[in-house]
Amino acid sequence: MSIRDLSPAQLVPMVLEGNVRAGSRLMRFLDDRVEGSTEVLKDLFPHTGKARIIGFTGNPGSGKSTLVNQMVRHYRAQDLKVGVVCVDPSSPFSGGAILGDRIRMNSHANDPDVFIRSLATRGAMGGLSRSTYDVVHVMDAMGYDLILVETVGVGQDELDVMKLAETCVVIMVPGMGDDVQAIKAGILEVADIFVVNKADHPEVHRTIKDLRYLQSLLPQATGWEPPIHSTIATTGEGIEGLANHLSDHIDALRASENGLATRNRARNEHVLMTILRANLSDRVEEEVKSAGEPLLDALVSRTVDPYEAAEELLQRIIQP
Amino acid sequence: MSIRDLSPAQLVPMVLEGNVRAGSRLMRFLDDRVEGSTEVLKDLFPHTGKARIIGFTGNPGSGKSTLVNQMVRHYRAQDLKVGVVCVDPSSPFSGGAILGDRIRMNSHANDPDVFIRSLATRGAMGGLSRSTYDVVHVMDAMGYDLILVETVGVGQDELDVMKLAETCVVIMVPGMGDDVQAIKAGILEVADIFVVNKADHPEVHRTIKDLRYLQSLLPQATGWEPPIHSTIATTGEGIEGLANHLSDHIDALRASENGLATRNRARNEHVLMTILRANLSDRVEEEVKSAGEPLLDALVSRTVDPYEAAEELLQRIIQP
Repeated sequence: MSIRDLSPAQLVPMVLEGNVRAGSRLMRFLDDRVEGSTEVLKDLFPHTGKARIIGFTGNPGSGKSTLVNQMVRHYRAQDLKVGVVCVDPSSPFSGGAILGDRIRMNSHANDPDVFIRSLATRGAMGGLSRSTYDVVHVMDAMGYDLILVETVGVGQDELDVMKLAETCVVIMVPGMGDDVQAIKAGILEVADIFVVNKADHPEVHRTIKDLRYLQSLLPQATGWEPPIHSTIATTGEGIEGLANHLSDHIDALRASENGLATRNRARNEHVLMTILRANLSDRVEEEVKSAGEPLLDALVSRTVDPYEAAEELLQRIIQP
Repeated sequence: MSIRDLSPAQLVPMVLEGNVRAGSRLMRFLDDRVEGSTEVLKDLFPHTGKARIIGFTGNPGSGKSTLVNQMVRHYRAQDLKVGVVCVDPSSPFSGGAILGDRIRMNSHANDPDVFIRSLATRGAMGGLSRSTYDVVHVMDAMGYDLILVETVGVGQDELDVMKLAETCVVIMVPGMGDDVQAIKAGILEVADIFVVNKADHPEVHRTIKDLRYLQSLLPQATGWEPPIHSTIATTGEGIEGLANHLSDHIDALRASENGLATRNRARNEHVLMTILRANLSDRVEEEVKSAGEPLLDALVSRTVDPYEAAEELLQRIIQP
């Protein structure tokens, strides 16, 4: 029997053995919301919670993918199994480059202990976060030691994805002019480690200085002061240092009385809301589709106002 | 009686007269989801539908705010009333610059016929789109002829905002290396007009060529081929040409048999979903908060899995 003939539930034992094809197949089922696939996530749950989940975020052009690629290499040298979830449409991991002669960074394509999964940006309302969480969850159950989540650093949904990680790395580059200024406050708040990549750029010191200043404006509550670390991802410079910062961060979380607990609480609340919102979103779309053309006609002809219409639909969906 | 003492409903007549302070006050009420404020939106509805809504999107550093500022000046010279809704945290309109000596672009601060409103990025699930729509709706009722919505061009929520507009202007800049490549497919699809700003840059021709090539990959369905227009927003070069493209676009929509109707239908469906999702999101947060600590404890200790928990909460929220 081929994997293609198996139902989501039948895939479970193979997924737990770390079978990559079974894992991919299940992820595809989850993506398509195939019946029974959500049940499988429950079956996998007792086998999860072991992976270390690290988020990487930064603007297009920050060298984020190259950096993630180097981190994969670093962890593979320690014989750790690594999963990569890529939610950046511009990343070469995701195959998202539309034009040109971009060099594919995926030098791990033939390594069975590196599993790379790309996610397209999904519809509104937490769809992206739910999909990311599903994939992380499956990789965790498959036995990957580390799961690196790469996401483009602008946009609320993309930022929300970072909240699934235990440690968030925010990647900046020097010489983007007012880029440090344009950084969203939300990104500063999620950052556990700052990386200034392309550190051979002449303006690197200014970028670090600007970041330090921004940091000084933020409240310091947790006892962990996010370090600012320089790398040149293309040459591998600073990669080992970054790995050290990452393990320092998890140590700090574990050592602090309620560090890891607080973080886990926030993560779990976020995951719960994410799943709930995305499931509700599915229901909303169904309801709007079933209200259908007559309602849209009424809206277009302005005989019904959208606030009224939304309220009526809401009454149909939710409990009184 | 001061405006500050008025309820949302009491503000309505003043809002309809175009009173800026009453409009601001009502927007604040809407932002805070104050009781009765949503009812007011229904009261305003019959007075809306007259404004022309134009979206502007582009990465930080694309000169988007300068361009919007020039468009405001252009329309003001024709004695049109202009509203600006700014949903870009890095825009000087929004006061979002954190550091430095950024020059405030808002040269219209003393013009009573220019109303600028900034929106912070909101929580997940359509919150940003709902807030933007609310503000656009109030400005429309206040009698603004044009409403310019400015949003940063990355992120699903930010992109969704563009769907509220009749015409979407996507702003690019030359010399950002692979920026054209990194553009999200979603942005290409919403673009009615491309602007290549900073057109005095030596690489402008390459950017235009790249854009043309990208365009050639897209299906051409609507009969409107998005023009690629060059501007130098800092000097005002190309602003009049952009205004011409904008009026050509609305003319084309009106002239085509179902252009404007199709666009309106899509916009209305989007608005409806936006309101519905955001209202549901409020309900989700309530429900998660009320399930509270015991549920979070169970999640953190992994005695309950998040999929199960989400399902149980969902059952409490929605109709069977």
